[in-house]
Amino acid sequence: MKQIQRIGVYTSGGDAPGMNAAIRAVVRTALYNNIKVTGIYRGYEGMIEGDFKEMVSRSVSSILQKGGTILKSARCPEFRTPEGRKKAYDNVKEAGIDALVAIGGDGTFTGADIFSKEYDIPVMCIPGTIDNDLYGSDYTLGFDTANNTVIDAIDKIKDTAASHNRLFFVEVMGRDSGCIALNAGVAGGAEAILLPEKDTAIDELIDMLETAKDQNKTSMIVIVAEGDKNGGAYHVAQRVNEKFDYFDTKVSILGHLQRGGSPSSFDRVLATRMGYFAVNELLKGNRSATVGIRGSKIISTTLEEALRGKEFKLDEELVTISQVMNI
Amino acid sequence: MKQIQRIGVYTSGGDAPGMNAAIRAVVRTALYNNIKVTGIYRGYEGMIEGDFKEMVSRSVSSILQKGGTILKSARCPEFRTPEGRKKAYDNVKEAGIDALVAIGGDGTFTGADIFSKEYDIPVMCIPGTIDNDLYGSDYTLGFDTANNTVIDAIDKIKDTAASHNRLFFVEVMGRDSGCIALNAGVAGGAEAILLPEKDTAIDELIDMLETAKDQNKTSMIVIVAEGDKNGGAYHVAQRVNEKFDYFDTKVSILGHLQRGGSPSSFDRVLATRMGYFAVNELLKGNRSATVGIRGSKIISTTLEEALRGKEFKLDEELVTISQVMNI
Amino acid sequence: MKQIQRIGVYTSGGDAPGMNAAIRAVVRTALYNNIKVTGIYRGYEGMIEGDFKEMVSRSVSSILQKGGTILKSARCPEFRTPEGRKKAYDNVKEAGIDALVAIGGDGTFTGADIFSKEYDIPVMCIPGTIDNDLYGSDYTLGFDTANNTVIDAIDKIKDTAASHNRLFFVEVMGRDSGCIALNAGVAGGAEAILLPEKDTAIDELIDMLETAKDQNKTSMIVIVAEGDKNGGAYHVAQRVNEKFDYFDTKVSILGHLQRGGSPSSFDRVLATRMGYFAVNELLKGNRSATVGIRGSKIISTTLEEALRGKEFKLDEELVTISQVMNI
Amino acid sequence: MKQIQRIGVYTSGGDAPGMNAAIRAVVRTALYNNIKVTGIYRGYEGMIEGDFKEMVSRSVSSILQKGGTILKSARCPEFRTPEGRKKAYDNVKEAGIDALVAIGGDGTFTGADIFSKEYDIPVMCIPGTIDNDLYGSDYTLGFDTANNTVIDAIDKIKDTAASHNRLFFVEVMGRDSGCIALNAGVAGGAEAILLPEKDTAIDELIDMLETAKDQNKTSMIVIVAEGDKNGGAYHVAQRVNEKFDYFDTKVSILGHLQRGGSPSSFDRVLATRMGYFAVNELLKGNRSATVGIRGSKIISTTLEEALRGKEFKLDEELVTISQVMNI
Repeated sequence: MKQIQRIGVYTSGGDAPGMNAAIRAVVRTALYNNIKVTGIYRGYEGMIEGDFKEMVSRSVSSILQKGGTILKSARCPEFRTPEGRKKAYDNVKEAGIDALVAIGGDGTFTGADIFSKEYDIPVMCIPGTIDNDLYGSDYTLGFDTANNTVIDAIDKIKDTAASHNRLFFVEVMGRDSGCIALNAGVAGGAEAILLPEKDTAIDELIDMLETAKDQNKTSMIVIVAEGDKNGGAYHVAQRVNEKFDYFDTKVSILGHLQRGGSPSSFDRVLATRMGYFAVNELLKGNRSATVGIRGSKIISTTLEEALRGKEFKLDEELVTISQVMNI
Repeated sequence: MKQIQRIGVYTSGGDAPGMNAAIRAVVRTALYNNIKVTGIYRGYEGMIEGDFKEMVSRSVSSILQKGGTILKSARCPEFRTPEGRKKAYDNVKEAGIDALVAIGGDGTFTGADIFSKEYDIPVMCIPGTIDNDLYGSDYTLGFDTANNTVIDAIDKIKDTAASHNRLFFVEVMGRDSGCIALNAGVAGGAEAILLPEKDTAIDELIDMLETAKDQNKTSMIVIVAEGDKNGGAYHVAQRVNEKFDYFDTKVSILGHLQRGGSPSSFDRVLATRMGYFAVNELLKGNRSATVGIRGSKIISTTLEEALRGKEFKLDEELVTISQVMNI
Repeated sequence: MKQIQRIGVYTSGGDAPGMNAAIRAVVRTALYNNIKVTGIYRGYEGMIEGDFKEMVSRSVSSILQKGGTILKSARCPEFRTPEGRKKAYDNVKEAGIDALVAIGGDGTFTGADIFSKEYDIPVMCIPGTIDNDLYGSDYTLGFDTANNTVIDAIDKIKDTAASHNRLFFVEVMGRDSGCIALNAGVAGGAEAILLPEKDTAIDELIDMLETAKDQNKTSMIVIVAEGDKNGGAYHVAQRVNEKFDYFDTKVSILGHLQRGGSPSSFDRVLATRMGYFAVNELLKGNRSATVGIRGSKIISTTLEEALRGKEFKLDEELVTISQVMNI
Repeated sequence: MKQIQRIGVYTSGGDAPGMNAAIRAVVRTALYNNIKVTGIYRGYEGMIEGDFKEMVSRSVSSILQKGGTILKSARCPEFRTPEGRKKAYDNVKEAGIDALVAIGGDGTFTGADIFSKEYDIPVMCIPGTIDNDLYGSDYTLGFDTANNTVIDAIDKIKDTAASHNRLFFVEVMGRDSGCIALNAGVAGGAEAILLPEKDTAIDELIDMLETAKDQNKTSMIVIVAEGDKNGGAYHVAQRVNEKFDYFDTKVSILGHLQRGGSPSSFDRVLATRMGYFAVNELLKGNRSATVGIRGSKIISTTLEEALRGKEFKLDEELVTISQVMNI
């Protein structure tokens, strides 16, 4: 096995708080082990275009606390073609990169897997997405920060519940995953949570609101994951209003602000540990894996298993708990 | 002039951060001057229903830092009728209340003015609304906090501008007043700001976006006041998209979270000074006025002038500055 | 086994963010299961004095997001005497309490253990302390929030590193446990971390600062756990200064603000799950255990094991990582 | 009068949140008016060493929300000598700079005044210091942000007041100015505030604490400005403890974190307006002045008056209010 001399690191797909902390950890761990690092900008797009930059220790100064990704990110259809990957490989080879660390989600990992096999280049994948929907890790980078952002919004809305009969719908991110909706809903004390994984009929929701009304609740918060089958918060609010207009409904759509913000302590430490681990795995000869956290241990899962695997992350017990808390 | 022996304090209309700080200041200043205080719940509704509570120093402990209003708030059509006001007066009289402090917006002040004249009861009004659209004060309670809430959201969205060609529309409060949109837009470094007071055509906005595109700006933020004449952020986004789809548009609707949150230092100090001033004015014999801040001085304006007056608060120079900053 | 009909819940020892969320979960889970709940104020002191209050669902409204503990807390030497515990038992019995949930740290658990054995009353203990130094749980309530508070302070200090040659010492909580210092130090990107568990000589620290000076670092942050063997941050700063005055030293002592603040999403969800679990364990007949989280699972450990056990929580690898990150 | 073609901008002295926003406004307003801008690094030190950089619009992208100053800051004794200023002038002249904008405090303005007269170069000064102790402006940049930072700390400490008999001393910045202590003390609801401008004897403080004890207050917060005549918070705590040990005293020293943090909306808007105004004044021929805000108007004061003037900023009425609020 050839000794690794230069690692290429990139971020791809939707950005998430903690990506910068992971980049920093990869760069510094590599340098500590006398391995050089190339920063690849804009993910696979930059790989194809050769948008590379030498990373020294100072390159990652003061990025630990920053949201977003200094390496930027992009979607890149061209990388799905053999021609695109060929161009990428030529650049990677010319730059002397002999191993990769990819930070991103499902699509990022799939690209890394194909590329790694095609050109026999080792790759480690770090799960960076606020949705917490990747196989092989209890938590993905950015999930904790996004939850804190959402509860901050919910807390503020709760403050304004001074007036009677207010029904607030708060739409949070999660096209296929209800993780943020469920966690932030429990943490924020929401009265109801609509999840993409569950089919909550509008009638069921209205029943619940009727009960709440009978209990003399003066204001209520319903969290709606954007991927909820009833449509977004606006549609749900409208449909509820048609049948049940006791409450004055108000809608907040948090949108992309959930992807931003300075990462939480949890995400920064997780990102740092994952970046450190990824480089050390490469040094130990691991050629194709994702990094994850299980309990308090950082572990690796083969990319094969990770991409094939389907992990249903929605904590069913937490769904029950969310209901018990609304007694 | 009869010596005031008991003040009634209430909040009415939309709530705003800083209302609790004002209540606390009214209660403690009155007690300091050996005047008793009755808390009137739910504004005019509670006045009509006699929903009163004796306020002692402890009643307002630990509320300085809280959003919302411990006295709650409600809209009350009945108070617009002579019969409603008669009921209210009977309760006020029975409770021994011989002066009022009202905290709220335009509607609150109008009610206070009529009631005060009708039953010859002195009233001081404290401007509490995030919209900053009241006559007689440079700032209303809650405006500063709301601006900080909005820029926190904008800052987070800016973090996620790692991907190319993103156009973010952020809808902020302000049905008739663009104060929050303009201030937070300047503070957040928005590329464009749509205000209810200005007629910005969609074409004009697109021209601006074209220029930005030509300058290779990779992401942009447009603030839309909810009262903008083009409709809310969703409509604007849609209409822009129809004609100009270079950017990938994303929408955030902040909604009622802008009314909440722990008040800023500015709002707490302002509320405390205003509450202190209101009680002292009553003691000096002022019978009908609003409290305001002009420069660093707390002042009073007769209710007559305040209600008749129209203060165009939108700072035209700040509109110009917002454009210059986008060179 | 007698069916449980009334649970007593209390907080004791130093308070921690998330305690209120745990109280809420205990109350609502019990009510959901048709069990009554008595709130015991001021921990063992209130138990001895019979300072009890019936808890209904509304008693725990709007406390999920609040720091501190609505049940208050106190140290209570009297409870260490059989006489004290006898008084407590008489009150508990009279109130019809037939099971307890204790929220706190080591001392709280020891008291619960003795009391439980002495009077054969089932007890479940929930770990609430920012120090993360309890056996049987990866995380204690409040630890995550405290870390976020500390990194917020570090981030702010980093902003001011515009001037040359600044050396900041930041003292954080942890008399015997360096968990906060280590985690927040890594999350904040501190240049050095002094831990109670490690004997870092001043000379070693100075060597490190010399290196940093040679690397042209213009400002540095050293985290000092309050229990560090060199004395607090002031002493360390003074002793460093005596030998090495290249840097202009500045000291921050965060103190008790680390115990406060609205709990993070992580702490709220953890508290909610732990409270729910504690009541359910009591229902299943568990008579003497602590609640903990291992990985993503909530588990119980017998009080016997928990009190005998010594868990060295300091993550040695994280110590290594903290050094690698400063290359 | 020669047309200005290039402005040099610099920050000097202690940094303050909002300095970056002011730099951005200066740069963009100048560019908008077809004036070039040179960024002068490290204040007068960089001026003497010729540490200059061309500023284009992109140079100030994404700095609006950042604490600190991208131009860095330094103290520079050499600038107090004619030789130092001669070197500085040679660099300034060579770079084609024909006007200056200085951002900082008293020392910065004095340097600017001397230099401006000596070499007949126009200069506008923007007040940037968290202490709010400059003549000619109701508010200096950073003061509002610093107050928000301090109340956030106080709010957190208040959360932990669950235990009995706690007396918290919180030391805040202000060597000669009690502005932060007073404002944040009122906004945080502190029970006592020790100011550099007032001679509060320890005995007086103890009297107050005795009263509070008698009123059954269970915890109290005393704000101590670092420049208080009794010495810092540690000394005050010690001296109080010697005579009165009813309370368990705890000390927090906030230190330099008060200088950092993302600027508040208020500071960003103020900085933007001041930067815009400064450049426009230079264009109108103003050759030597400070920028300030009076009420809601941005104004200028001649440097002569500003440096001679002594503005006692401590709001005596606010001192009274702080006492009334503690009834």
